[in-house]
Amino acid sequence: MATPGTQDHLHGAALPSWSEGPAKQSILDFVNKVTTAGGPDFVPAPERIAVFDNDGTLWAEQPFPVQLVFVLDRVRALAAQHPEWKDQQPFKAVLENDMKAVAAAGIPGLVGLAMATHAGMTTEEFECIVKDWIATARHQKFQRPFTELVYQPMLEVLDFLRVSGFKTFIVSGGGVEFMRTFSETVYGIPPDQVVGSSIVTKYEIRDGRPVLVRQAKLNFYDDKEDKPVGINVFIGRRPIAAFGNSDGDFAMLEWVAGGAGARFALIVHHDDAVREFAYDREPGLQQLARGLDEGPKRGWTLASMKNDWKRVFPFDAE
Amino acid sequence: MATPGTQDHLHGAALPSWSEGPAKQSILDFVNKVTTAGGPDFVPAPERIAVFDNDGTLWAEQPFPVQLVFVLDRVRALAAQHPEWKDQQPFKAVLENDMKAVAAAGIPGLVGLAMATHAGMTTEEFECIVKDWIATARHQKFQRPFTELVYQPMLEVLDFLRVSGFKTFIVSGGGVEFMRTFSETVYGIPPDQVVGSSIVTKYEIRDGRPVLVRQAKLNFYDDKEDKPVGINVFIGRRPIAAFGNSDGDFAMLEWVAGGAGARFALIVHHDDAVREFAYDREPGLQQLARGLDEGPKRGWTLASMKNDWKRVFPFDAE
Repeated sequence: MATPGTQDHLHGAALPSWSEGPAKQSILDFVNKVTTAGGPDFVPAPERIAVFDNDGTLWAEQPFPVQLVFVLDRVRALAAQHPEWKDQQPFKAVLENDMKAVAAAGIPGLVGLAMATHAGMTTEEFECIVKDWIATARHQKFQRPFTELVYQPMLEVLDFLRVSGFKTFIVSGGGVEFMRTFSETVYGIPPDQVVGSSIVTKYEIRDGRPVLVRQAKLNFYDDKEDKPVGINVFIGRRPIAAFGNSDGDFAMLEWVAGGAGARFALIVHHDDAVREFAYDREPGLQQLARGLDEGPKRGWTLASMKNDWKRVFPFDAE
Repeated sequence: MATPGTQDHLHGAALPSWSEGPAKQSILDFVNKVTTAGGPDFVPAPERIAVFDNDGTLWAEQPFPVQLVFVLDRVRALAAQHPEWKDQQPFKAVLENDMKAVAAAGIPGLVGLAMATHAGMTTEEFECIVKDWIATARHQKFQRPFTELVYQPMLEVLDFLRVSGFKTFIVSGGGVEFMRTFSETVYGIPPDQVVGSSIVTKYEIRDGRPVLVRQAKLNFYDDKEDKPVGINVFIGRRPIAAFGNSDGDFAMLEWVAGGAGARFALIVHHDDAVREFAYDREPGLQQLARGLDEGPKRGWTLASMKNDWKRVFPFDAE
């Protein structure tokens, strides 16, 4: 049990990449409240669950979500085996690098691309494919591996919560088997604490060995109102803190903030075109409109990348 | 990191309710192998995942699985609101206490009963109903709460694995939201480490508060070949040890034992009609036939309740 003195000492050193201000202070205050034994807002350690969106909350999602870049690379890699793709949308658009046409295919088009490239192999084979890709692929603007384009201030939040007795989870629309290949090394989050979208798998014996074969069928799409659903079925306990960045996270933030007792919700606002990207209200998967309008009224913290973060990426100068 | 001396000391005190013999020794040997730093079978702590079936592996499942007793009690409790059940199978059979007719309805009948009694309320309401029931219901033979009918030797295995750096999970055909109400207090397994069957839930705002409403629709039935599927989607890492008791666990044991490196699989054999129940090859949900025939040939441990367990329940004399 931490003494108040220890807490203060801990908090003084915490979140070094966050500028002093209301956003940083709101995190420190919340953690102080729920960890102060005997205090009115104390939460026992097993109930200290925090959930984080991934794309745009823990790592960069512009100009394209990382898993979309992976899908497009897989379409290109597999195109020789699928001559029919040259005349078939949205494959044709991918092969012609026509990103507008890819975007025009919408969610159904993207799901179709994912099914065509993420299924038909065992879970072990898929893991190898992802690991190979993520070790070599580079972000087009920063020319660095995607796993370096993680937000230093958010890594510090993860660490700070964990040393404060929290269990940290990812709850993302991304593919769960995609994220699990790097979540432990990059975020310190083990595979069983990653909640995400998934496709159906089927148990089979192949050459005397049991395998799970990935099927071209969606099992669960972990976005919007289904984020609380995913939290309930995977985690089974209502978190007390949630971090997101788009309206796809709104229901998750609302679900977490709507519980009894001390609660915390934070939205990362991408308003830094110099160090990262600036975007919010533009329509699309990454839109942040309702969160901007309603979040502050609901007592949620709005973290400005531009003003609240001294550093964005670990490779930025301190 | 434990020194060899510490390990030996630890193992000497471990599993006090297990009789000396090959079953106990196989557990000690396995844990020793995977925790011996520098040894050929060493497994880093994050990869030490162990999975346990629940019904018949961690607690008693005879004469009826506990959740079935709950379902039947719920049918009786709700009957006044459903006069049509008097003439409708399998509800009629439940209300007439005709367990043969209930059994004859098979899995579809049981799923129907579960849907009629487990849906239509919020997840919070369901949790309260289960907690109230489990606090008051009694096992018909032992006249004790079901949460006391847990196997002392298996509680010791759970503890021994955890002090040896393992993360322990339940992987059960039982309802995940049913088991999570007691898994932490009874087994020391937190809700997010419970994998089980689930029904669909839907996110809604009711009176300004976000809730998840349970729908009368099966989401995932975590049994047989779907246990490895559940392990993969929920845990995301192939376990190195598995514990089961029926052929419903066969695929899980096979999946775990079939991985590379040191692996451990154990079947609890219910052969003790005096202290618990004796059953194995009889057809039905709890059948153990393939496991008995093939398990030992595959190097799996068969634990005889009669011979390998000094005590069965925590309340038994030492």
